[in-house]
Amino acid sequence: MSNLKPHRFAIIDFGSNTVRLVVMSAIPGYSYRLEDEIREVVRLRQGMTEKGLSDEAMARAFSTLRLFKRFCDSTGVDTVLATATSAVREAANGEEFVGRIEREIGLKLQILEGESEAYYGVLGALNEMPLSVGAVLDIGGGSAQISQVEQRRFKRGQALTLGALALTERFIKNRDKAITATELKAVRAEIARQLDTVPWLNDIKNTTLVGMGGTIRNLATIECKRQKYPLDTLHGFVLKRTSVDKSIEQLRQLPLAKREKIPGMRPDRADIILPGTLVVQALMERLDVGEMHISSSGLREGVFFEQFWQHLDDPIIPDVRRFSVLNIARNYNYQKPHAKHVRYLAGRIFEQLVPLHGYGLPERELLDAAALMHDLGTIISYNDHHKHSQTLIENNGLPGYTAREVGLVALLTRYHRKGQPDCAAYKTLFKGGDEKLLICLAAILRLAEFMERGRNAAVDDVSVTWTDAQLRLTLIADEYPAVELWETERHAVPLVEEAFKRRVIIDSLAPPGELSEQPKEEDDEE
Amino acid sequence: MSNLKPHRFAIIDFGSNTVRLVVMSAIPGYSYRLEDEIREVVRLRQGMTEKGLSDEAMARAFSTLRLFKRFCDSTGVDTVLATATSAVREAANGEEFVGRIEREIGLKLQILEGESEAYYGVLGALNEMPLSVGAVLDIGGGSAQISQVEQRRFKRGQALTLGALALTERFIKNRDKAITATELKAVRAEIARQLDTVPWLNDIKNTTLVGMGGTIRNLATIECKRQKYPLDTLHGFVLKRTSVDKSIEQLRQLPLAKREKIPGMRPDRADIILPGTLVVQALMERLDVGEMHISSSGLREGVFFEQFWQHLDDPIIPDVRRFSVLNIARNYNYQKPHAKHVRYLAGRIFEQLVPLHGYGLPERELLDAAALMHDLGTIISYNDHHKHSQTLIENNGLPGYTAREVGLVALLTRYHRKGQPDCAAYKTLFKGGDEKLLICLAAILRLAEFMERGRNAAVDDVSVTWTDAQLRLTLIADEYPAVELWETERHAVPLVEEAFKRRVIIDSLAPPGELSEQPKEEDDEE
Repeated sequence: MSNLKPHRFAIIDFGSNTVRLVVMSAIPGYSYRLEDEIREVVRLRQGMTEKGLSDEAMARAFSTLRLFKRFCDSTGVDTVLATATSAVREAANGEEFVGRIEREIGLKLQILEGESEAYYGVLGALNEMPLSVGAVLDIGGGSAQISQVEQRRFKRGQALTLGALALTERFIKNRDKAITATELKAVRAEIARQLDTVPWLNDIKNTTLVGMGGTIRNLATIECKRQKYPLDTLHGFVLKRTSVDKSIEQLRQLPLAKREKIPGMRPDRADIILPGTLVVQALMERLDVGEMHISSSGLREGVFFEQFWQHLDDPIIPDVRRFSVLNIARNYNYQKPHAKHVRYLAGRIFEQLVPLHGYGLPERELLDAAALMHDLGTIISYNDHHKHSQTLIENNGLPGYTAREVGLVALLTRYHRKGQPDCAAYKTLFKGGDEKLLICLAAILRLAEFMERGRNAAVDDVSVTWTDAQLRLTLIADEYPAVELWETERHAVPLVEEAFKRRVIIDSLAPPGELSEQPKEEDDEE
Repeated sequence: MSNLKPHRFAIIDFGSNTVRLVVMSAIPGYSYRLEDEIREVVRLRQGMTEKGLSDEAMARAFSTLRLFKRFCDSTGVDTVLATATSAVREAANGEEFVGRIEREIGLKLQILEGESEAYYGVLGALNEMPLSVGAVLDIGGGSAQISQVEQRRFKRGQALTLGALALTERFIKNRDKAITATELKAVRAEIARQLDTVPWLNDIKNTTLVGMGGTIRNLATIECKRQKYPLDTLHGFVLKRTSVDKSIEQLRQLPLAKREKIPGMRPDRADIILPGTLVVQALMERLDVGEMHISSSGLREGVFFEQFWQHLDDPIIPDVRRFSVLNIARNYNYQKPHAKHVRYLAGRIFEQLVPLHGYGLPERELLDAAALMHDLGTIISYNDHHKHSQTLIENNGLPGYTAREVGLVALLTRYHRKGQPDCAAYKTLFKGGDEKLLICLAAILRLAEFMERGRNAAVDDVSVTWTDAQLRLTLIADEYPAVELWETERHAVPLVEEAFKRRVIIDSLAPPGELSEQPKEEDDEE
């Protein structure tokens, strides 16, 4: 692990509905992790008039921000980054309000213009998704931002007053009841009217659409419950247009009390979720796309990544997938030399065996990821650490990887040392052939692991040859790799024989002979 | 965490059936954890005659010990402690064999006499069990040790040639078939004959019996499968005499192929498990006890603990329970000041509320343990860390605590910040009243957690008063504890109202007034 001391960033995102504080512990450019989070539904926009924010809303906001500032002080945060978005931006008294907060609480809120708000959301997504070209929709409480991405950069973005709370406030009379047909029509008309003000939407049809924000996350959670999605993270989940249509049909017919009971629904969002969902539907229709990729990373993370990657020309990681694996490995204090040597040996075996398995770079990347992370579970305990590695990967997800890929990598770590590979938990995500792929890659990973059993890179390389009947793996090592031969033979060979349908022979270029090490004092206490 | 660098001990236990190597990473007197393990079934005793160990067995032993020595060298172990037990001790050529191993491999094997073998097994148990007075049975491959414990010290012990492999070798002709009635009778007679040579068995009837060794662990695993035991660790499991009787009935009627299929059976033990099981039954009968407490900690751990506690007069921890909680907390790098302050505040609330809940020291100890460990799960991830804390405790177990207590502590950490306490997973272990206990302690822990939300010991103490209708908690703090009042009110109060059936009021001795902190530079980068 790097010896640098982590820096603790608090990011406060003062939205129109919710105020959130996240604490990220980070070594810039190296690794980051979420360390704490608090959240308060302030509904700053509620009761806003042409004079500005209401007294009640400002009082709630003051009390919450005082608490958040105290929280930062008492928990010893190094840097506080606080932003305010549409409600403050649009309020006649917004600037005055921000001035008072700075004077009285000592907290500097940066008011983000619409395009900046869109920019930071995109920054959040790009740093955790391998998006090159596409559109990003971020639905907040007050506004919704639509942005265009080209060449992994923010091209342009626009904020519309299509936030879930803003639309509810304007169009829904009685939130406790089901929406009326008239209200539904009015909301849809307003959404259409505002989308018309974004001329470039016509240029980006059929693109990749990314969605973020509380409304969209909640829609995804509801769909995850429907399909018993096996991962614990929403990030990377693909929400189908048919699911959005289904949710709208469900939401429009139910009174609040029943909406709150929908599996996956956040109770404090049930009263405002429908108008936001209509925005999703309208944009999907207009862009003619059938699905939306969910990003858990948005505005707050964008503000954070601007600091984390500040040494880059643009604060955007070029290769999300490689970095997200490294980030998890670093956070769990992986044994770097061992993990990297297992990755190397696995890669060598994989590439020599291409004529037999026929896989290419995409599969190799999964093997690399699993090799780097195979032992992460030892942070929980040595016993069953292969199972713990699986759990850790499923818990964190792997930003940039699809759910299917996360499942494959998690199972590869699960089967890196024992057990018969079993895909059952992922049957809804896996494609035909994935079970065969899993067995093949697990066999290769297991070989590499046991060829590096001494954890000291004793095996420099492995040469792979075969006939129709047998497969020979010859270890090339500085001296006779007794431990590695023995462990590979007992623990890896059966699965390799199953994967490649050949009898497996493991031998070594170095002759057995006598061992060369010197006897040393065994009971030496220091 | 302590800044001391962990010392890595390899303990090699050269038994008559199995050779095992465990690597313990330890900061002596502070914390330890298992870091690696290898195991090889060598069956050193097989083919032993009056001339000593057979050539084939010695060749197997040499090759395994060479590998183990290499493994220690390549993985960078600091200290190797290697012991040999009954087969080597009893073989005519045992000393010569050990001499050759030292000369040729550079590994010094200490041959343990029968009483020393018994002693180290007891040392292992005493350091992970709160046993004061009792008997310990350790069944190995060659011998079985029976020991007496008084005042948490080894009093005396004796090795008998009642190991699982030794008995099988002597009495069972065809291991593939079910045991014959004649063989069964002969094994039982031999066991009785040898138990007769331990005169003091008659002095320790009805005592607490502890069991260890592969045979006993495997019997416990089989019983765990039968009853769907909810914990992942065997240590502390209570094996009933009725279960042993049942296993014998099952084992005696089955040929090897079917014995191997018994759920929980280790396939490489199925051929020798029955004679060992008969030893367990015979000793339980003789001591007239109905149950046996399983210890996963035995000879190897005893050898380790002699080093770990070498600064004590006797290498035995006085209070296993307190230390096992600390050990886990230290291994998972707990946030010491926060955890200890939560424990303090929880204790203060608990003791003031005694007239209402009526609990005493045993329950207080569970609350203390949960308070110290409530945040351990953050090592996995901040999200759902309460669930991860539960998982970590269930995975590790808590040496010294009963399974019911481990379950209660795990669930207390699970519910320390949210959720309605639910005992369902432990219904087989919990007693009547445990659900009420869980709700009461979880409510207290949740209060303490949110009263320490700023993680800076801002709340010095809490004063608890009540009437029939309401319960008042008054925070005593250096300045107005705004964050703590707010968080406690929102997150802890509902469960406290449920637990104590009173309306709850949270207030503070310090007046609200203006906040006293100085505004500081928020964006300061260093």
